[in-house]
This record gives sequence, C-alpha cells and structure tokens, in this order.
Amino acid sequence: MENNTDCLFCKIIRKEIPANIVYEDNSTIAILDIHPVNIGHTLVIPKKHIENIYIFDEQDTQNVFTAVQKVSKAIKSGISADGINLIMNNERPSGQLVFHAHVHVIPRHNGDGLAQWKEGRGYKEGEAEEVVGKISSQL
Amino acid sequence: MENNTDCLFCKIIRKEIPANIVYEDNSTIAILDIHPVNIGHTLVIPKKHIENIYIFDEQDTQNVFTAVQKVSKAIKSGISADGINLIMNNERPSGQLVFHAHVHVIPRHNGDGLAQWKEGRGYKEGEAEEVVGKISSQL
Repeated sequence: MENNTDCLFCKIIRKEIPANIVYEDNSTIAILDIHPVNIGHTLVIPKKHIENIYIFDEQDTQNVFTAVQKVSKAIKSGISADGINLIMNNERPSGQLVFHAHVHVIPRHNGDGLAQWKEGRGYKEGEAEEVVGKISSQL
Repeated sequence: MENNTDCLFCKIIRKEIPANIVYEDNSTIAILDIHPVNIGHTLVIPKKHIENIYIFDEQDTQNVFTAVQKVSKAIKSGISADGINLIMNNERPSGQLVFHAHVHVIPRHNGDGLAQWKEGRGYKEGEAEEVVGKISSQL
C-alpha cells in the first residue's frame, strides 16, 4: 500500500495513532471525526495515500464511494439520522486540512440548526454557455 | 431507464426541459446549477430516478462518482478553480430539495468568502465507542 511517513491518516491506517474505527476493508478505513459537526460524523479514507479527487483512478473512486455508500446507510439506521450530507473538500481553498483524500459523512437531524450555503446568483445572458464550453472542452 | 413523470431532473434527462449540459454518458448527466454558489457549480445526476445514496447499488455508485471525478477534474482545469467541494445532500433535513439524487461539484477560489461548517465538540469519555458500536453493528 502506498503510504506516507508523515501523513496523519497514513499513521491511523498503519495503527500508529489510535482512532475510533467504524469500518475497514482492504482499500478503505472509516473513522469518527474527532471534532464532529454532529455526533457520528465519520470520515471515509482510502488506504492509499492520494491527495484529492483529481488524481483518483476508477478503482480508487469505486473503492472509496462504495464504502461511503455503505457507511451512509449504516449511520442512517445506526443513529437514526434524518438525513446525511456527504462532503469532500479538495485543496486548501475548499477547506481541506489533511492532504490525504477523505469524504465526510455527516448525520443530520431535524432542527439541528446547520444550514447549507445559500445558492447564489443566476448567469448573465450567454455566460452559462461560455462556462459549459470551458468545462466540457476538458472532458 | 427508470424514470419519473413529474421529477424535474427526469424531465431534464428526457430533454423536455432545457439545461446547460456539461457532460452526458449512458448513465449520468451533468448540468450547471441555475443558482450557482460559484460560477461553474455543476450537478452530476444519475439518469435512473434514485432518491438518495442509501438505495444506490454498486453500479449506481460507480456510475455517478466516476462521472463526478471526471467533471471535477474538468472544472478544475477548465475554469482554473483553486479547489473543489463535492456535496451530496440526502433527505430534506440535509438540504436536499430535488428528490432525485445529485452531487454538487462546486469550484472554489482563494478568498471567495465561503466558509465550511465549523467542526464542533469532542466526545465525552466512552461516547465515541458507543457511537462506533451503533454504526458498525449495521455494517
């Protein structure tokens, strides 16, 4: 398994640092976030040291999100969540703090007071088409 | 393709309602969000009418998140994003508004002023172990 000596999550994966392990398989581990947004807030982490989504290959994607799906379902029933947010931050300006890819699985409850970002503005005439061109030309 | 007569996203998939399509393949479509948090905010949507992550099968997971990975990479380079948030809201208390599963791919820029939820409290002694038990017993 590719692994990084100084990475916090690699240390947890190697069991050099303790963590509350919710789930583990050959390619992924899921642990409780130590500063949860809500109780049961879990991180799903590939065992391979990969920094972010941009460099996931198809197998990485399948491994991580198959585990995310299983853990989401288990959190939903295990702690009777009313909903679940999945959040993955990629690169520092997005809020990523540990540069080993991870997906937050956050249980939500009616009236828990957390609010999502307000969706913003619209597009000016022609602007959306321009943006589509910029993105789809990379696909 | 399983499809729902009254669902907004199913109508977009059937091309009965126009949308700014960024990407499309046999199983998924990606469109610009009409009220973007940031310019280029895209939704990746399975063509099959599935309500949320809990009922994704392995193939659904693979289809949707493989497309999410591709679109993230294309947004990163196409509009020179400094980071990307992936967000999937499941059920109304989490902020889900259209009950056809979708993943938000949100480009971020240095100093764009959006802040994530603050991570909260810690666990009391013994509490984390109890929570792990509740979740992992469902896996």
